[in-house]
Amino acid sequence: MTRAAVFGAGSWGTAFAMILEKAGTETVIQGRRAEIVEAINERHENPDYLPGVKLPDTLRATTDAAEALQGADFVVLAVPSQTLRENLTAWKPHLPEGAVLVSLMKGIELGTTKRMSEVIAEVAELPAEQVAVVSGPNLVGEIVRGQPSATVVSCVDEQVMDRLQQACHVPPWFRAYTNPDVVGVELGGAIKNVIALAIGVAQGMGMGDNVSALMMTRGLAEISRLGAALGADPHTFAGLAGMGDLIASCNSPLARNRTFGEKLGRGMTLEEAIASTKQTVEGVKSAESVLELARKHDVEMPITEVVVGVVHDGMAPAEAGVLLMSRSPKPERYGV
Amino acid sequence: MTRAAVFGAGSWGTAFAMILEKAGTETVIQGRRAEIVEAINERHENPDYLPGVKLPDTLRATTDAAEALQGADFVVLAVPSQTLRENLTAWKPHLPEGAVLVSLMKGIELGTTKRMSEVIAEVAELPAEQVAVVSGPNLVGEIVRGQPSATVVSCVDEQVMDRLQQACHVPPWFRAYTNPDVVGVELGGAIKNVIALAIGVAQGMGMGDNVSALMMTRGLAEISRLGAALGADPHTFAGLAGMGDLIASCNSPLARNRTFGEKLGRGMTLEEAIASTKQTVEGVKSAESVLELARKHDVEMPITEVVVGVVHDGMAPAEAGVLLMSRSPKPERYGV
Repeated sequence: MTRAAVFGAGSWGTAFAMILEKAGTETVIQGRRAEIVEAINERHENPDYLPGVKLPDTLRATTDAAEALQGADFVVLAVPSQTLRENLTAWKPHLPEGAVLVSLMKGIELGTTKRMSEVIAEVAELPAEQVAVVSGPNLVGEIVRGQPSATVVSCVDEQVMDRLQQACHVPPWFRAYTNPDVVGVELGGAIKNVIALAIGVAQGMGMGDNVSALMMTRGLAEISRLGAALGADPHTFAGLAGMGDLIASCNSPLARNRTFGEKLGRGMTLEEAIASTKQTVEGVKSAESVLELARKHDVEMPITEVVVGVVHDGMAPAEAGVLLMSRSPKPERYGV
Repeated sequence: MTRAAVFGAGSWGTAFAMILEKAGTETVIQGRRAEIVEAINERHENPDYLPGVKLPDTLRATTDAAEALQGADFVVLAVPSQTLRENLTAWKPHLPEGAVLVSLMKGIELGTTKRMSEVIAEVAELPAEQVAVVSGPNLVGEIVRGQPSATVVSCVDEQVMDRLQQACHVPPWFRAYTNPDVVGVELGGAIKNVIALAIGVAQGMGMGDNVSALMMTRGLAEISRLGAALGADPHTFAGLAGMGDLIASCNSPLARNRTFGEKLGRGMTLEEAIASTKQTVEGVKSAESVLELARKHDVEMPITEVVVGVVHDGMAPAEAGVLLMSRSPKPERYGV
C-alpha cells in the first residue's frame, strides 16, 4: 500500500489528504497545532480551516514530524511558501530514503527567486527525479463540497509521476492529469496571482468581460514568455496549471488577489487596501520576484510591470490601463 | 486612403465599421433594410442593433452592394454564417479587383463543414492571400460603451495582414494583434460556442469555478487537437481568438449559448429550452458539424460528444458529467 505524509494542516493540505485517502493511499497529516491534530483524529474534522467538512475516519494526524514520515512514499508539502526552507531543514533528518517530495505550494522564494521544487531539491539534497509538484484549478471550498475538479501532477521521472497520479486519482470526483514539465506547471501557479490582481484592478474600474478575457490571455502570454526563457514547455500554460488555474483564480468571487486589486481599482489607496485586508496577498509580494526574474532573463512582462507600478510605485490604475493598451501593434505570438 | 465596405448592419458589423472609421479607414456599411441605412446616414445611429450608440458622422451606409464595393480595399463580411454562400454569390460580380475579403463570422457551414474563409475563397474564386479573418473576445456591448478590447487579424499574406491591422488598430480603445494562422484563428471562434453551451449546462447543475475552469481548459484542448489535425498552429488556441474568445463567451452573463446550456442543466427538457429561447443558439447547430469534422479526422472531442448527446440524443446532463470525469487517467497533452 502506498503511504503519504502531508505537512501542513491548512485548507489545501487537509483537502489533498482527503483526496489521497479516497484514492486508497494511507495518509497522515502533520500539523503544528495540537488542537487541530486532535480534532482530525477524534472528530474527523479540521475546525479551523474546513469547518463542517467530514474527513475520512481513516485519516490520521500527528504533531510529530518523525512519526508522520515513517514509511512514507510521498511527502506532501503544503506549508506557506516563505517558510518552506526553514521547515524542511528541520524535517530533513527524518526523510525516508527514496521518498518523493511533492509540492502543493504556489510561490517564488523571495530573495533567491527560486521555485518551490528548487528549494526542496536544494534543502533535501534530492535529485529532480524525487521531487514532484501538484497544481491546477483547485478551489478547496468547491472540492470539499463534493464538486468535481482536476489537477496536474508533474515530475521529470515518468514512473514517479504515474505513481503519484494513481495515488490521487479519484474519478469522477478528482481527476489527475500528468505533465512532465515541472518548471511550467510550477510557474503557472506562482505567477497567476499577479495577473489576478491586475484583473481585479480593471474590474474595480468598471471594466467588463472583454477586458478580463484580454488580460487573462495576454497575462498567460507573458507567463509563457517567462516560462520559455526558464526552459518550460509553452504548451503547459494552455493546460490546467496555466490557463485553468488562472481562470479559476480570476473568476472566483472569493479570490484574495482579485479582491485586493478591485479595491485599488475602485480608488482606495494602497495603504487603505492593505489596512482593509486581513490575509497576505501573494500577488503583491510575488509581483516583484516575478519582475526580477523577467528582467534577469530579458523577458517583456507588461502586465506584471504595471502591477509593480501600481502596488509599489504609486502608479494610478487608469494610467496603467492606457499604458497597456497603447503599446505598439504586435504579432500575437512573440518571445515563445 | 484605405477604403472598406462592411456587409451586414448587425451589431458586430456596425461596431467594426465604427472601429475602421476611427482608425482612419473610409468606411461604408451595406445593409439590406432601408430604414437602418437611412438612420445610419441621417441620425448616425443603428436603432435596431446598437440603440443609443452615436456612430461617427463620416460613416456612410447604403443598400446598394455595387455602390458599397466601389473602390473598396477591404470587403468585410458580417452576415449570418449560413447565408454567406448565397449572399456572396450575388455580390461577386461587383468585387473590385485586388480587394481583400475579411470574415467577421464565426461558424462552420452546415453540410460542407467548411470554415467561412474557405467558403469565401471558393465562392469569390480568390487565392488565400486575398482572404483574411478577424476574431477575438469582442463583446459588442462593451466595445461600443468605450471599453478597451483587442482582437486578432489573420491572413496567410503578411503584408495584407499588416495593412488590415493598421486599418483597425485604434489604441488605447481597440488593439489589433496579427497571427498568420488563419485556420486556428477561425476554428477558435467557431467551436467556442459548443464549449460555452457545455459550461452552461454545468453551471445550471450548480457547479462552481473549478468545473468552469476545467471545462474551458479541456474544451480548448479538444479544439486544439482538432485544429492540429486540420493544420492549425496549436499556439493560436492559447491566444485571443482561442482562449480569449472562449473565456469572454463563457463568462458573459448575456452569452446565448451558455444561457441555453444553463436551462438544460437546471432540468428543462430540450423542447422547453428551445421554446423559451428566441434567437438561434449557434452551439446547438455547430456541435454536430464540429463532431462530424472530428470523426472525419479521427480526433477525440469528449466535451463536444456529450454536448451532441445532450442536445440531440436526450442524454441526461448528470450522466454527461460522470462520463467526462470517469475517462481513463491521461497525460495532459495528447493529440497535439
